[in-house]
Amino acid sequence: MARTWGNIFFSLLDYKTEKFVIAKNKKVGVLFRLFQLGVIGYLIGWVFLWKKGYQETEEAIQSSVITKLKGVDLTNSSQFGLQLWGAEDYVIPPQGERIFFVVTNYIVTPNQRLGYCPEVRDRGCWTMHFIVVYSGVKTGRCINDTGTCEIHAWCPVEHGQAPSEPLLSKAENFTIFVKNFIKFPKFSFSKSNVLPTANKTYLKTCRYDKDHHPYCPIFLVRDVINWTGYSFQDLAKKGGSVGVGIEWNCDLDKDESQCNPEYSFTRLDSSINSQNSVTSGYNFRFARYYNDAAGQTYRNLFKVYGIRFDILVNGKAGRFSIIPTVINIGSGLALMGAGVFVCDMILLYMMSKSSFYRETKFEAVTKWATQERGETGNRDAAIDISVMSAQ
Amino acid sequence: MARTWGNIFFSLLDYKTEKFVIAKNKKVGVLFRLFQLGVIGYLIGWVFLWKKGYQETEEAIQSSVITKLKGVDLTNSSQFGLQLWGAEDYVIPPQGERIFFVVTNYIVTPNQRLGYCPEVRDRGCWTMHFIVVYSGVKTGRCINDTGTCEIHAWCPVEHGQAPSEPLLSKAENFTIFVKNFIKFPKFSFSKSNVLPTANKTYLKTCRYDKDHHPYCPIFLVRDVINWTGYSFQDLAKKGGSVGVGIEWNCDLDKDESQCNPEYSFTRLDSSINSQNSVTSGYNFRFARYYNDAAGQTYRNLFKVYGIRFDILVNGKAGRFSIIPTVINIGSGLALMGAGVFVCDMILLYMMSKSSFYRETKFEAVTKWATQERGETGNRDAAIDISVMSAQ
Amino acid sequence: MARTWGNIFFSLLDYKTEKFVIAKNKKVGVLFRLFQLGVIGYLIGWVFLWKKGYQETEEAIQSSVITKLKGVDLTNSSQFGLQLWGAEDYVIPPQGERIFFVVTNYIVTPNQRLGYCPEVRDRGCWTMHFIVVYSGVKTGRCINDTGTCEIHAWCPVEHGQAPSEPLLSKAENFTIFVKNFIKFPKFSFSKSNVLPTANKTYLKTCRYDKDHHPYCPIFLVRDVINWTGYSFQDLAKKGGSVGVGIEWNCDLDKDESQCNPEYSFTRLDSSINSQNSVTSGYNFRFARYYNDAAGQTYRNLFKVYGIRFDILVNGKAGRFSIIPTVINIGSGLALMGAGVFVCDMILLYMMSKSSFYRETKFEAVTKWATQERGETGNRDAAIDISVMSAQ
Repeated sequence: MARTWGNIFFSLLDYKTEKFVIAKNKKVGVLFRLFQLGVIGYLIGWVFLWKKGYQETEEAIQSSVITKLKGVDLTNSSQFGLQLWGAEDYVIPPQGERIFFVVTNYIVTPNQRLGYCPEVRDRGCWTMHFIVVYSGVKTGRCINDTGTCEIHAWCPVEHGQAPSEPLLSKAENFTIFVKNFIKFPKFSFSKSNVLPTANKTYLKTCRYDKDHHPYCPIFLVRDVINWTGYSFQDLAKKGGSVGVGIEWNCDLDKDESQCNPEYSFTRLDSSINSQNSVTSGYNFRFARYYNDAAGQTYRNLFKVYGIRFDILVNGKAGRFSIIPTVINIGSGLALMGAGVFVCDMILLYMMSKSSFYRETKFEAVTKWATQERGETGNRDAAIDISVMSAQ
Repeated sequence: MARTWGNIFFSLLDYKTEKFVIAKNKKVGVLFRLFQLGVIGYLIGWVFLWKKGYQETEEAIQSSVITKLKGVDLTNSSQFGLQLWGAEDYVIPPQGERIFFVVTNYIVTPNQRLGYCPEVRDRGCWTMHFIVVYSGVKTGRCINDTGTCEIHAWCPVEHGQAPSEPLLSKAENFTIFVKNFIKFPKFSFSKSNVLPTANKTYLKTCRYDKDHHPYCPIFLVRDVINWTGYSFQDLAKKGGSVGVGIEWNCDLDKDESQCNPEYSFTRLDSSINSQNSVTSGYNFRFARYYNDAAGQTYRNLFKVYGIRFDILVNGKAGRFSIIPTVINIGSGLALMGAGVFVCDMILLYMMSKSSFYRETKFEAVTKWATQERGETGNRDAAIDISVMSAQ
Repeated sequence: MARTWGNIFFSLLDYKTEKFVIAKNKKVGVLFRLFQLGVIGYLIGWVFLWKKGYQETEEAIQSSVITKLKGVDLTNSSQFGLQLWGAEDYVIPPQGERIFFVVTNYIVTPNQRLGYCPEVRDRGCWTMHFIVVYSGVKTGRCINDTGTCEIHAWCPVEHGQAPSEPLLSKAENFTIFVKNFIKFPKFSFSKSNVLPTANKTYLKTCRYDKDHHPYCPIFLVRDVINWTGYSFQDLAKKGGSVGVGIEWNCDLDKDESQCNPEYSFTRLDSSINSQNSVTSGYNFRFARYYNDAAGQTYRNLFKVYGIRFDILVNGKAGRFSIIPTVINIGSGLALMGAGVFVCDMILLYMMSKSSFYRETKFEAVTKWATQERGETGNRDAAIDISVMSAQ
């Protein structure tokens, strides 16, 4: 029979539906329905409601952080006398960056001049192996008085330990104001952690509180450290490193006002055996240079210990998108196929009447069987039964 | 009948294809074909062509930014006289970082010495609540002359407002050169925003222009601020914060030369009521320390206002990968199953001849029906009809 | 027949399995089995074993980096005499940031005072086009002696090139200690690149070695530069930019001890024609300010060249999750459907017995055909054959 184009087109419009065999086997039937309910429950409950699988997400948040500290402290050190530390002195660098250091303790070596003097480490010249002199260049001479090497350095060389009581003890009362502007580029969504409606008076006096003042990002140094599980005393002598986490988890299908930051506080430097650990503590040196009346250069060397604050911003935004929705629904539907496969295997191979079901389900096709059957001689009949039929 | 291993193996090689019932129902047929066309159109048009769903992507771009400013300005302030500001003075920090501050205005309090003097804020000693003195430590005495508290501080204490006309008015003519090197680690792809073929002369004179000079990342401060929608005058007095976005969207299936950055400019600090807003403006303090002939320390305190520039680099790279391709194709195919389910429901339950179709589609299997039918006595025949058959 | 609710419920519990036709066609059968094996191989081998497709991943690693350099160098410059550089001098900024600069060469212009002097660039006043004077503000006068413009600037103006031999030649012996703390917020997993068991003595003497000391993140400047493929000499004169990559690829299904960083070293500034390239080299200026006995300000201007180190941390963590597992399995299963479609097409349209298979596979349904067949008069029989039956 010729298949004209018209026939082909119209046959494309026929609806073909799979033929099913109803196996009245309640055990497998219940198992399959339970499996289907499980997949639907997984899809709706876990994927869509809990994990929001219908959303496309972005984790590459863009963030800009500006900080500002307030507070002063007066110190009195043996080498240097009275010193007043304002934010311009104890915040390094002073320009309000995301990562900043607050001085809590220091050793100052004033009036250093370039010259020759003994190294003060108690490593004699005679132990030549692995001597690394940090302060200056060795000249090769030994100073008999001290038993140490002579070095060409800024003299006198720094010596001594950090004071056991942190010199800037009031540093725990300093306040940190953290302004954070974030943007999710994929969704062109941006927000700040300070409410646009906040007024100057509120922000001058409030302090952050998780329950009562969540939109006041002003923290006391002492509170930040306490919330890491440590105390100011633990960190202030030798210094330490604290991470302030700002997490933005935003469901952009909801209102913008529901997208708010959550703050967390972690100690970043190792805490095991904090006195002996090589990874705890934080210090560095800087110098202030002066010229005397004769034009000779001298300097004050500061070795400062303190707390480094690292504002770590991360976030995730999600918005409904058709592609992840389709992917998750499609995967769930395909899983049904796995269930069908398993239930079929049980029905066809593991039940008492399995052979019976197999013969119902699978219809063999052979070329010659029709002739032998003696049916109404239709060779093209689609329902010949091969092996199994007996006349 | 024994099933030998040979039989089992050969039966595995048989091809089993599902049996279909052709329901000559054009309505459901057309509906199903439309659904199929819809899914194919979604897959090819939306997923693959528009969203490039055949690519695996990376959004965690690695970036290194180096900046360099050029320009000078001469200022004349009442407290400090003539001052010439070069990049070594007005760029803080000076080492060409990703985030840098350009001074546009300042208050300088020269020759401060540690001592006792009255606080200059107009908050009397008598208002004891919430008095936080920022400049020094209160001694407890009231100075009758000024009606303020005496503080131990660097005296004289800073006072006054920033000049209403920004002192570094020529700052808008400074040029910013932004060098950006990026890498997508997942694809080991790296590139710079300056063409390797660029020569010194070109880069000495060109200015960025979106259409004519897109590969010249040299910007006038004035242009950058204008492109945020604000003017230099808006930001220069009290300072502000500007984000320069560099976006790299790269299709790595295309040639490397097609992967180029796009620049965008945003104002990051709040702009509503910019004069009164607590979140707009940008300032900080730093000091330069000196020793006089007697060895006494004194300092010049600078409160600088200016524009903080934040170079925010983000990007996304994509390259063909088999897994997302398979996932998207697979989900689309599984969606077809949803279409089949819906069309089946319509055919079997919502059409006038539905019961007829149901009986054709579903074939019931029972153990005993064959005996009652009086067919050619084959108990194993797969085509017994249960409930419906009448003799 | 009435369909009661009870019947409907029980019919839901019936298990319906698709009816299949066994086409004993080995060619298509083998093809289909090969396709199935291919999909299973793809799923198990590529998706699950190689790409770990059963894991959800996070690429937005949070990182905190602290650095510390050790070493000194003595320099002797014509303008400035002897100078000793310690970490407080050659590391800019000194506080141990993720991005830091190490001075290797410099030009110092001491004793600059604000005044009038000739610009030292050899661009005559008479060439009025594109004259940009960087050091000061032009007064408009020409200085006949030098043929250059008079400028109001810090005089004398800086002149000369960087010394051809880097002044801080020992900088290659400086050591860099890189402490890196990372966190994957999605999995609440954090780790440091220094083993908690490391003791002070080990870290004082060890050097990083990929095979023998992988947990000692202390690097010689010379080694870092060599590992980029360049030498200290290449970068030290004009400066350069080096990226130190720390990559954390962590399979969180394994033990935490298996999550370790890998270090890589890249040169970030352009290297083609490094002498002439505008993008290679790294320098900036800073000044130290002094007051003389008369209270007049003067300064030493430093133009420093050096190597900028950029510690670039990236990483990816993965952990088993049900959703990506289901998505990949589901997509694979749906792919089987594509295989079925292709094999069906071959069987039904491309083989010699295709028409035969088509008639077996597709069963047509019409309303009236039963009457004409003369079977045991059951109009509801599901197995009427339309077009093909002949009586």
